[in-house]
Amino acid sequence: MNDQIRERLAAAGLVLPQVTAARNRYRATVIDDGLLFVSGQTPKQAGVPTVAGRLGAELDVEQGRAAARLAALNLLAQIDREIGLERVKRLLKLNGYVASADGFVSQPAVIDGASEVLVEVLGAVGEHARTSVGVAWLPGNAPVEVELIARVTP
Amino acid sequence: MNDQIRERLAAAGLVLPQVTAARNRYRATVIDDGLLFVSGQTPKQAGVPTVAGRLGAELDVEQGRAAARLAALNLLAQIDREIGLERVKRLLKLNGYVASADGFVSQPAVIDGASEVLVEVLGAVGEHARTSVGVAWLPGNAPVEVELIARVTP
Amino acid sequence: MNDQIRERLAAAGLVLPQVTAARNRYRATVIDDGLLFVSGQTPKQAGVPTVAGRLGAELDVEQGRAAARLAALNLLAQIDREIGLERVKRLLKLNGYVASADGFVSQPAVIDGASEVLVEVLGAVGEHARTSVGVAWLPGNAPVEVELIARVTP
Repeated sequence: MNDQIRERLAAAGLVLPQVTAARNRYRATVIDDGLLFVSGQTPKQAGVPTVAGRLGAELDVEQGRAAARLAALNLLAQIDREIGLERVKRLLKLNGYVASADGFVSQPAVIDGASEVLVEVLGAVGEHARTSVGVAWLPGNAPVEVELIARVTP
Repeated sequence: MNDQIRERLAAAGLVLPQVTAARNRYRATVIDDGLLFVSGQTPKQAGVPTVAGRLGAELDVEQGRAAARLAALNLLAQIDREIGLERVKRLLKLNGYVASADGFVSQPAVIDGASEVLVEVLGAVGEHARTSVGVAWLPGNAPVEVELIARVTP
Repeated sequence: MNDQIRERLAAAGLVLPQVTAARNRYRATVIDDGLLFVSGQTPKQAGVPTVAGRLGAELDVEQGRAAARLAALNLLAQIDREIGLERVKRLLKLNGYVASADGFVSQPAVIDGASEVLVEVLGAVGEHARTSVGVAWLPGNAPVEVELIARVTP
């Protein structure tokens, strides 16, 4: 990661979570011809979930927003592990899935937590298109899952 | 927009809804190296939701199909605002999310409302791959949300 | 399909299901400038659904995993029908949607059935990034739906 990104992280009091390449049936990141796909990330610290439950049931919007922020930091950590954040040319598309209990319809307010931290860390390069939807349940009872497509330099 | 697209809209009695670039934490559209990503759109007129509720509860398939059609017109309006519809070389992928109450499994019939209007307006250029799923809840209790990836000319 | 892929299918005792191009409002596959998008596929044999129900209700993880495997074989069959599997340069991104009844949070174990068969058939070329989420309901009460982005040779 370059100095500007490091300074932005420091200024925001942020530390990227530790991540590992998925050792399972799929890869955490795939890069091909300048397109980077990052697998869905949930809120984890060093690979351990920090929060569980659905929005509108166990968790409120502020808790969901914090969870989305941490999940997005895991996206950034995966990119940094794979190629270094300085090689991000432009974020393209963020999809945010919010585990939503009966009647919860404030998904965008939750996913704002992810969008905000991406721009905090990457600046204008971090701006992105986005879709937010409310799903039934997420892996391990995570409250939120985010995935990303980006353009990176060769 | 070019004359052929204008004529198709007129022939179908369609008017693109007014849209604005998202002023929020994300962008309504992102274009990079000929790939265009349009953020998730719900059924709105001039930015105001026209319908709320879930399929299989407050809304039936025909109402859902009309909602999907309007949401897709918002996709087209976002593209037209950003670069003009004549610069669409080819639609690639439409994803449709349908807010689905207990037991509702006719998501494709709903999202057909979006697919049909895209081809009505753009002709063969508007043909696309697609995924339709039934989610729990959508932002603002929207019945349907659609997002798009397209190839555009530089 | 080339001999190596044919041999892998035979060794695994796999036969690609029969598929047709979607004759409906959308296309089963779209290719543009080396990017291939495959529309969402559910578990079908010769176009006929083989299983219905949700995970955590009518179906358990093993049944879901088998359904995901068959859905992924339909992805491969669509690619083979369109351009031949030997033209796949690299899989990029798999998204898996699991119809999830109350409290079901083992979506990744289900979608592993799709990821595994993609690598079985394509080898290293079949490795991919992935997102798994638990949706409310899927078309025709399918238990799982998968979609794919890949890079293909011109």
